[in-house]
Amino acid sequence: MDTLLDFLGTFFFAVSGSLLAAHRGFDIVGSVLLGFLTGLGGGVIRDLILGVTPTAFSQPIYLLAPLAAAGLVFFLYAAVERLPRTLLVFDAAGLGLFCTTGATKALDLGMNPVAAALLGVTTGVGGGLLRDVVANRDPQLFDPNDLYAIPAMLGAAIITAAWFVGWRHPVTQLAVGVLVFAFRLASLRFRWRAPRAVARRRHRT
Amino acid sequence: MDTLLDFLGTFFFAVSGSLLAAHRGFDIVGSVLLGFLTGLGGGVIRDLILGVTPTAFSQPIYLLAPLAAAGLVFFLYAAVERLPRTLLVFDAAGLGLFCTTGATKALDLGMNPVAAALLGVTTGVGGGLLRDVVANRDPQLFDPNDLYAIPAMLGAAIITAAWFVGWRHPVTQLAVGVLVFAFRLASLRFRWRAPRAVARRRHRT
Amino acid sequence: MDTLLDFLGTFFFAVSGSLLAAHRGFDIVGSVLLGFLTGLGGGVIRDLILGVTPTAFSQPIYLLAPLAAAGLVFFLYAAVERLPRTLLVFDAAGLGLFCTTGATKALDLGMNPVAAALLGVTTGVGGGLLRDVVANRDPQLFDPNDLYAIPAMLGAAIITAAWFVGWRHPVTQLAVGVLVFAFRLASLRFRWRAPRAVARRRHRT
Repeated sequence: MDTLLDFLGTFFFAVSGSLLAAHRGFDIVGSVLLGFLTGLGGGVIRDLILGVTPTAFSQPIYLLAPLAAAGLVFFLYAAVERLPRTLLVFDAAGLGLFCTTGATKALDLGMNPVAAALLGVTTGVGGGLLRDVVANRDPQLFDPNDLYAIPAMLGAAIITAAWFVGWRHPVTQLAVGVLVFAFRLASLRFRWRAPRAVARRRHRT
Repeated sequence: MDTLLDFLGTFFFAVSGSLLAAHRGFDIVGSVLLGFLTGLGGGVIRDLILGVTPTAFSQPIYLLAPLAAAGLVFFLYAAVERLPRTLLVFDAAGLGLFCTTGATKALDLGMNPVAAALLGVTTGVGGGLLRDVVANRDPQLFDPNDLYAIPAMLGAAIITAAWFVGWRHPVTQLAVGVLVFAFRLASLRFRWRAPRAVARRRHRT
Repeated sequence: MDTLLDFLGTFFFAVSGSLLAAHRGFDIVGSVLLGFLTGLGGGVIRDLILGVTPTAFSQPIYLLAPLAAAGLVFFLYAAVERLPRTLLVFDAAGLGLFCTTGATKALDLGMNPVAAALLGVTTGVGGGLLRDVVANRDPQLFDPNDLYAIPAMLGAAIITAAWFVGWRHPVTQLAVGVLVFAFRLASLRFRWRAPRAVARRRHRT
């Protein structure tokens, strides 16, 4: 179940990568590679920091996720073409699942609670950040028009707190993942924003 | 011999980095740094995933490669100026050597075959991807007008298969490296392409 | 004292990240995240290469640095608004401290002198490079109009030499850090430049 959630998160993120590849006119190989990087990049960073072999390499079954994602985008792009909305929904689903599975894995491996929550956030936002950086566009993570990191932080914090009071069931993870997903989509829908980086409104773009 | 091929691959990639630095008007230090990142970046990523100290740091002799590359570009840029073709040739040579040495190292360290082939590809495309990302341009890896990852995948797969049937001689590596190099250049020359990321032709750029 | 210098370097780099976030119109969360990436990214890369748990995760106290930096920028942006000069000064302070603490940590963990000096440079330039890459702008590291890597290389080399003759006092680190800081600022003030990447002046931009 734990692995299933992680696999699902990988798939959702991989779809967001393949959609971006389609949007940018990449070929099918680029679609697989960008899906791979988006779906598995956050987990690779997490595992390197945890000092374990990245699951993308120790468990090759995960490679099916970017392959399936690229296939889905290849055949169903016409149906899901309402970009960038579709991309954002898949990205949000990946975010929700990864911030919870990332924090859980860090806790299971004995990290302190602050680091575990931080690693949950890193896992959640890392893949999307890599996707945007290698596709040479401004990262969604830094878009000031909605909330991205805050839902992930909240989710990772809840999971960490729940872990310490003994709620370690995958259903808890799933529930928190859905909460993060809903929070993220709501911030897009209702244009929730965080305060600007400066107290005064003036800034140069 | 194994180390020699790896060193040569580092040098070829480093030349591609230094050529890009020259092309962008960087200074000689930027030329060395971009050569370093291109030549040694893929191997550093590979070694971090394998959990060993990156050779760039454990064997400082490798640092001679980016220094030599920057020197070569400094003195011979006029002769090799037909950019970007020259850059592409050096990049292809690095790709050919690295996808084979990367896969071999992973196999020697006990990775499963799928992960070993994947690490060969990662080693091959990683340095060039870092080069393009830090130089803030669209990665060559994602250019839909030729084949880049497919030759690397093929080479890494052949090396992995050969390793399992007992052909582990450096000459095998060299031969496969040359094959990948030729395949990559042929794809540039004859404009071989992979199918687009979407079945329908329509896409927005 | 050692930790204090490292914390200060983290803070200075984090301020440079938060200033860039303010400059780009990011929100307060983006300011914290970019400060985190700039302040702690170089050390995370260093620690991954050294094969130890990154201090950003093992010692959560370091997280106070990007929080304080984002707070400082939030309230005092009007006072420090003379961008990009202010950003460059904080960046230079981080560079000075990190190239010395990075090399020292590598030496303490038994790296060879060349690798230690190189890791000092990596720690010094890594955070700023990550900052510029994720903010999708040309890295300061490669700006040919001043010297960036050379002061860091000099500082890391001095620290390494000093370590081997037995001068391992934090005051040595601080002194070398100040030297690097002054060297970097002087190169900005007096427009010191390194030779171009090519002997001939002609190059295409």
